[in-house]
Amino acid sequence: MFEEMLKNVRQRSPLIHNITNYVTVNDCANILLACGASPIMADDIGEVEDITAICAGLNINIGTLNSRTIPGMFAAGKKANELTHPVLLDPVGAGASALRTRTALGLLDEVKFTVIRGNISEIKTLATGSGSTKGVDADVADSVTRENLPQAVAFAKSFAEKTGAVVAITGAIDIVASADKAYCIFNGHPMMSSITGTGCQLSALTTAYVAASPGSELEAVAAAVCAMGVCGEIAHERLGDADGNSSYRNYIIDAMYNLTGYALDRRAKYEIL
Amino acid sequence: MFEEMLKNVRQRSPLIHNITNYVTVNDCANILLACGASPIMADDIGEVEDITAICAGLNINIGTLNSRTIPGMFAAGKKANELTHPVLLDPVGAGASALRTRTALGLLDEVKFTVIRGNISEIKTLATGSGSTKGVDADVADSVTRENLPQAVAFAKSFAEKTGAVVAITGAIDIVASADKAYCIFNGHPMMSSITGTGCQLSALTTAYVAASPGSELEAVAAAVCAMGVCGEIAHERLGDADGNSSYRNYIIDAMYNLTGYALDRRAKYEIL
Amino acid sequence: MFEEMLKNVRQRSPLIHNITNYVTVNDCANILLACGASPIMADDIGEVEDITAICAGLNINIGTLNSRTIPGMFAAGKKANELTHPVLLDPVGAGASALRTRTALGLLDEVKFTVIRGNISEIKTLATGSGSTKGVDADVADSVTRENLPQAVAFAKSFAEKTGAVVAITGAIDIVASADKAYCIFNGHPMMSSITGTGCQLSALTTAYVAASPGSELEAVAAAVCAMGVCGEIAHERLGDADGNSSYRNYIIDAMYNLTGYALDRRAKYEIL
Repeated sequence: MFEEMLKNVRQRSPLIHNITNYVTVNDCANILLACGASPIMADDIGEVEDITAICAGLNINIGTLNSRTIPGMFAAGKKANELTHPVLLDPVGAGASALRTRTALGLLDEVKFTVIRGNISEIKTLATGSGSTKGVDADVADSVTRENLPQAVAFAKSFAEKTGAVVAITGAIDIVASADKAYCIFNGHPMMSSITGTGCQLSALTTAYVAASPGSELEAVAAAVCAMGVCGEIAHERLGDADGNSSYRNYIIDAMYNLTGYALDRRAKYEIL
Repeated sequence: MFEEMLKNVRQRSPLIHNITNYVTVNDCANILLACGASPIMADDIGEVEDITAICAGLNINIGTLNSRTIPGMFAAGKKANELTHPVLLDPVGAGASALRTRTALGLLDEVKFTVIRGNISEIKTLATGSGSTKGVDADVADSVTRENLPQAVAFAKSFAEKTGAVVAITGAIDIVASADKAYCIFNGHPMMSSITGTGCQLSALTTAYVAASPGSELEAVAAAVCAMGVCGEIAHERLGDADGNSSYRNYIIDAMYNLTGYALDRRAKYEIL
Repeated sequence: MFEEMLKNVRQRSPLIHNITNYVTVNDCANILLACGASPIMADDIGEVEDITAICAGLNINIGTLNSRTIPGMFAAGKKANELTHPVLLDPVGAGASALRTRTALGLLDEVKFTVIRGNISEIKTLATGSGSTKGVDADVADSVTRENLPQAVAFAKSFAEKTGAVVAITGAIDIVASADKAYCIFNGHPMMSSITGTGCQLSALTTAYVAASPGSELEAVAAAVCAMGVCGEIAHERLGDADGNSSYRNYIIDAMYNLTGYALDRRAKYEIL
């Protein structure tokens, strides 16, 4: 089923506007090219509306946010809403500083997001509105495990209902939820956390998948999350003795470049709750 | 003949000042080192004049331009002109936003460029002065082919005459033109467009080639364009089954590191019109 | 002996706050992950204090400094001092522009650094307070050789005494000095200078080593410098005929990922003066 989503990206080659951090921006551009989409990066208030207008989707990632780029995030988000383009929020480090928490919450208030993708701590920060990394909801543990999966899924669905967005909580187990349906995805490899930017890359990729399959947001996000995990697995199988995290980064992007819809469907491991 | 240009870069190791986007900046630095030059990146108005003064050439790339860096582009360009250093303009995305078009046209007005390098759409935007990606000159098609090559060459020569710069229009076929002579270059591989930043890298490389061979600007630009294309070919021959665009990016830079003048001359494919 | 330092990093996995340039920032993040630490990048005055407060060490690198990020460097440095977190200064390009020299000297005035790491020219600029790249102390030559090593060590010790910091002068021979003890390190490979960012990566790595071994600053810095050099050697041994500086960059980070304490101690080449 995810095969169709992958093919849509390759056939429609959506142009994705990224307002993203300068740490992983090159990898975000290359993963978009690898999957068949096209990237454009622009963050200045003086041009973000023009750029978003020629794109098919907008990816807002708040890592290395600053006083100059924050207004660009708001302006681009509102413009994309006007044009009914899909918009994704990656609240990198929400909870780690008051500025990040405040910015992410402000964006949630003023922009309608199609997808919100982050790790469990970031999503909890958004859900509880708390500006502290310690302000964690006691009912949802800090990592998603087989044991607490039902509670985590309930939390994701509830936050999806509240925001109207597809919520993707990624980690060892990934949850992709709308208000009433959730994919629990078991692909990926622990070594993915030894590379900077796999989360950022996934957000860029997800924006492309959603932009290419309008009307199938939940499935498109699940397909993108599976695709990233499957590429993490394929890349891990390729590692030689001397390889480490830098080669692994390259191999993941390479795997995305070579990923077929058949391989994606065959390797996807998920349950629907 | 291009062999001499390559040797000049390796022997003189010009220090190149880059004001460039944060997407591909690392690749620009590494391609400069690969070819034998040295990079320095600096974009703040408070230091760009000092930095340009100690360099041999200036590369201005407007990707991810912003309100803070634009004044630095103008100041550095003017300073480089004063010092008669070669200056290259890469009008990334001119036509995609009014800010980019306006900035590129403003730079053309106030700075004398030695080289202007972009894709056909960007160069057309500069030539027509139009702020729209749709404002395309009807006489020059949007991609350069064997069929429309004479018209594209005439367009490039005319823009070179108007600006006094060597004009490099790169794509499947590359055109490098002065007012009265043009190299049409047939090197490269289509897969180069699946990597972010091959254009940006070429602009950095070209600045180094021009800086190392003063008085031979046209030939230096042609040599740089050929070198990039040849490295794209060599890197493509090296690809294994599991490799994709990320490994390809590394292999292109590796190929530049290992490129000899002999291989460049032997593999260069061009016609002079 | 360095084995213990490496193990401390892997066991304690310090979170390192980096205010660094956009050229090599991705490599800095990946080398931190490779060594077992965790990176966070944040440069806006609106959040640097919050971010530093949750970290174990701060790495201030002035490459691509600008009017927006400079105040963030001062604020973060002062906050880290308050919290007695280790702070490293990498004065990239001090001497190349008045802005860089002035900023580096201002930081030295207002922030207490645990480590200062740069090349010989940068450190001389700081020591002489001169804003010119030509303002070189006549007693210390511009590259450290076997012949002038005693003078260079005396210079490093004297600057360490003056600043109260561990001073690391890196190049073909590396010197890591406190006021009364210096490690002269002979690891590394000349090809490391053909990659952008080995110095920046070393600064990030060093911050992690110092953060993980409080009370053993001198040895921790020496261990980090040795580790980087050893990885440069291991990566060089791995190069194939077609490999160049881009693959070399990946192999160095890979080598750090796979580096064992045993290999570090066995390959470390140093003298204590």
